[in-house]
Formats: sequence, C-alpha cells, structure tokens
Amino acid sequence: MRPCSTTTTLGSFDCDGVLWRGDHVIDGVVEVLNILRNRGKKLVFVTNNATKSRKSYKKKFDQVGLDVHVDEIYGSAYAAAVYISSVINLPRDKKVYVIGQAGLEEELHDEGIAFIGGTDPNDNTLAPFDLQNFTLDPSVAAVVCGLDTQVNYTKLSKAFQYLTRNPGCLFIATNEDSTFPSAHGLLPGAGSISAPLRFALGRDPVCTGKPASTMLDCVKAKVNFDPKRTIMVGDRLNTDILFGRNGGLATLLVMTGITTEGDITEPNASPIVPNFITESIGDFRAVEKVQSTA
Amino acid sequence: MRPCSTTTTLGSFDCDGVLWRGDHVIDGVVEVLNILRNRGKKLVFVTNNATKSRKSYKKKFDQVGLDVHVDEIYGSAYAAAVYISSVINLPRDKKVYVIGQAGLEEELHDEGIAFIGGTDPNDNTLAPFDLQNFTLDPSVAAVVCGLDTQVNYTKLSKAFQYLTRNPGCLFIATNEDSTFPSAHGLLPGAGSISAPLRFALGRDPVCTGKPASTMLDCVKAKVNFDPKRTIMVGDRLNTDILFGRNGGLATLLVMTGITTEGDITEPNASPIVPNFITESIGDFRAVEKVQSTA
Repeated sequence: MRPCSTTTTLGSFDCDGVLWRGDHVIDGVVEVLNILRNRGKKLVFVTNNATKSRKSYKKKFDQVGLDVHVDEIYGSAYAAAVYISSVINLPRDKKVYVIGQAGLEEELHDEGIAFIGGTDPNDNTLAPFDLQNFTLDPSVAAVVCGLDTQVNYTKLSKAFQYLTRNPGCLFIATNEDSTFPSAHGLLPGAGSISAPLRFALGRDPVCTGKPASTMLDCVKAKVNFDPKRTIMVGDRLNTDILFGRNGGLATLLVMTGITTEGDITEPNASPIVPNFITESIGDFRAVEKVQSTA
Repeated sequence: MRPCSTTTTLGSFDCDGVLWRGDHVIDGVVEVLNILRNRGKKLVFVTNNATKSRKSYKKKFDQVGLDVHVDEIYGSAYAAAVYISSVINLPRDKKVYVIGQAGLEEELHDEGIAFIGGTDPNDNTLAPFDLQNFTLDPSVAAVVCGLDTQVNYTKLSKAFQYLTRNPGCLFIATNEDSTFPSAHGLLPGAGSISAPLRFALGRDPVCTGKPASTMLDCVKAKVNFDPKRTIMVGDRLNTDILFGRNGGLATLLVMTGITTEGDITEPNASPIVPNFITESIGDFRAVEKVQSTA
C-alpha cells in the first residue's frame, strides 16, 4: 500500500445503483462517505441525469439522507453548459436550441447561455409542423439534446433545420445512455432522444456525459486533483467504468446496480474491465472497523 | 437491341422526383407512361411513403393527372402489412403495436392484421408516461414503425416494452429514409422515427421499403414478371437504384429529383451506380417520335 499523504485524493461516484436504489440509500453508504471525508478525501458525484440541474439533484441526496454540497455534484446537463460556455466559448450573441427539460435549461441559464426551445410551450406540441410557418433563427449556433420526455416532431424538425441550415451549428448531447432506469423499469434514455437527429444527419453529437472525457474536463475545471490518486466508483461498465478508464482513473465496480455477476463472467463478457470489484460501497465499513481495532 | 416479345416486361417507378415534383407532374411523363402501356409494358409505382395507404396515394396520382390503378401502387406501409400477413404469417390471435399514421393502419386492416397504438388518442399525447400505469399486452408480437409526425415518448416507451418484454417480438420498419422531402424542405424521415428504438435496443429493424428486397418480394407476390426484363426508374441512388440492383433489375437514374450531377461525378461519389442515366422520364417521348417517323 502507498502511504497516506496530505495531497487531496478524489473519490468519484456514480449515484443511482451505487449510493441509492430508487428512493432508498444503500446500506452503509452514509458511514462510508463519512469515513472518506474524515480521512480528507475529496468526493464528487457524477451523474448522467440531464433532466435535473445540480440544485434539483441535491434534493435527491437530501431525500435519501446523504449530506452533500451542490458543488460536489456534476451532472451531464451541467457538463454540457460548461462545455458550451468554457470549452467552445460560445459568443454572447449566439444561442442554443434545446431538446431537453427544465434542469438542462437551468444549467444553461446559470452559465449565461441564451437558449430557445426546451420547455417553451410552442415547441411542446403534437400539432403538425410545417416548414412554411418556421423562421430560422440565424443566431442559433448549437443544438443541445438531453433526455426529454416531451420530445416530438416539432422539436426534432426545428433542431434538424438548425443543424443543416445554420453553417457550423454544433450538435451536442448530454449523454448517450440507451436506457433510463425509471422507478418501475427501463425506458428509452437520452441517447434515444438524440438518435433521430444522428440518423437524419448521418453524424454523431459531441457527448458531455459519461463515458466521454468531456465530463472529467468539467470536474477538472473546478477541482484540482491527481488522476493517479482518484478512483471512479460505478455500477455500469459502459458508462462509469469506461469513463474512469478514459480519464486514467482507477475504477471500482459495485454490484448494487445494473451489472450482474453474469455480465462480467460470461464468455461474451464486456471487454471493459474494472480494476476492482466489490459487492457494495457499504463493504468499506469493514475496513474502518479492522483499522480501528488493529 | 433485343427484339420485342409478348412476355410482360415491367417498368418499376419511384414517384416523387420521378413522376412529379411537389404538386406538378414532370413534363412528358403522361405521354411516356401511355407509350409504355400501349407497348404492353406492365407498370408498377413503388414508394417509401408510409403515411398514406395505396388508396390514399392514388389521389396524389389523380391530382397531378396520372391515370393509374390502385393495384399498380406499392407503398412501404403495404409492404409491411404483406410482410406480416404473408411472409411471417402472424397468427390471427396476435397483434401489432403501431408507431405510424392512418395509412399504415389502413394497410394493416386491409390485410386482416389486428393492431393497437398508431392513431389511438391515448398514445398521441405529451402527458408523462409512467410504467406503473402501463399494462403489457402479451398478444403483441410485432412493433411496426413508419413515419409518424405524432411520435412521442409514450409511443416509444410502449414499443420499447413490447420489444424487450414480449418474447420474440419482431421489430419492423416501413423504411429507413433519413429525411422526408416536405413541400417546403427536408424534414426527419421514417428512419429517424425508428432510430430511438434502434438505439435503445441496440438492434436494427427488418425494413420493408426500398432498398430492401422485401418490397420487391411484395411486388412479386402480386405480379408475375421477369427481373431480367424489368427496369427500376428512380431519383435516389441509396434507395431506388440500390433497390433495383438488390433485386437484379436494370436501373435508370433520372435527374428530376434529389440526385445532382455532382453526386455522381465528384471524387467521393456514391459507389451505387445505375445502368442508365437520363435527364427526365419525359425524354422518352423523343424515342416514340423517332420510331413513328422512321
């Protein structure tokens, strides 16, 4: 084991399936997060949920009894907003067309980015869309697409116009999750919402959520940490673990979420292999007990 | 030239961009179709339009002044219905979940296929979809997806449930057109409507429209013709011309639709090459004049 040092080390955690399941915190998580904080570890919570802003997402932590600060939460909507404001430096006279919900709009607003679409009632309609009644806004320089359960042909058609008719218009997706774990089962995820545009355009968006390293760039912009002293903890191989590997972090897979033992032991198992596997983050309570009685 | 014979030869025509543009018949088309009929050629009209039944689509022919019979029209919605009724022989106690419009429903009905979804007002809504309020119908054995400008998260979520929870549920798309030429410009096409399900499922549908040979199987089921004495006339390389080539037909590209001279002469031109190219079907009037004055 490497000796402890005073350098800040980072624990980066996925949330759903790692910290909680549905509305219930996973056994032992409260104690383990406290143990880590008491040892001076910096913690960040990284979620691909793009329907909630970080402020809204904090309420979920409160609800399950986890005490975290908004600044410790990194969502894919926030990452999209930071990417637009600080990576591509969208000029102030340009705006974004949104396919997404209020959380995405809130993050864009907080980063000072002008936008149209999103929750605008004019775009949340099943009325027929006719190009004859559409006026192209030449100041739209990007389309941002997140999970949007109000997605419809008007939004897709407008986004398609901007992406094909406004020169250089950027195509950004908060994340590529194919499915979304609702309280009562899987539903189509954010990747499915941007899929019609991918197909119509024949090109892929820039993604700001896990496993893309854009999300880690966003964390790096706010926290000074050493990737070599950082571990990513998650329940999904193709988002969390791949995200950690893409960023040069150590990775820990927990079995409290979507991945089953079969997924990692079967002959056709994913080629994405974590550095460590444990049943649950709660297991680390045992380490504290061993060390305190040693 | 091969001498004329009494065997029926077939001309297979795409419609939009070949016979008409918008609401206007292309110059000379009426005469050329008459010339072909007078010479005993069998004609069929093959369209990927899946929002209209053949009966409805005939009105478009009437409107531009082309005299055709409903049985000469083959649409991708009809091809999907024939595929379900006659190729996979869906048992009579099974049904189909539809993402699509009235034309697709009409073709399914005419082939005796039971269906749910489609234009049902309960599914044409932007109200939140909650799995808790959804009852899986175990008799749904296929999802059929066509162009649907009322597409929404409820339809996509229901289709996703059938495709993941009903064992062996088939995934069928009327066609894969990425875009759709509306009167005032391009909009996302039928392929964009099935794209969320492709992405969420990680698998592709069976497609019944051009360029898939399923469409030609549908024509074959109704018309006895020799592919070697058949020509496919179209304006799109990746649907019409590829369809002809896939089916072993001769192919003729016309320049009255979407393909430009640049598309076929530029260094990165499509690898799909037609046997013949002409400016317009109307050009064939000249052949008749030459032959009648010879």
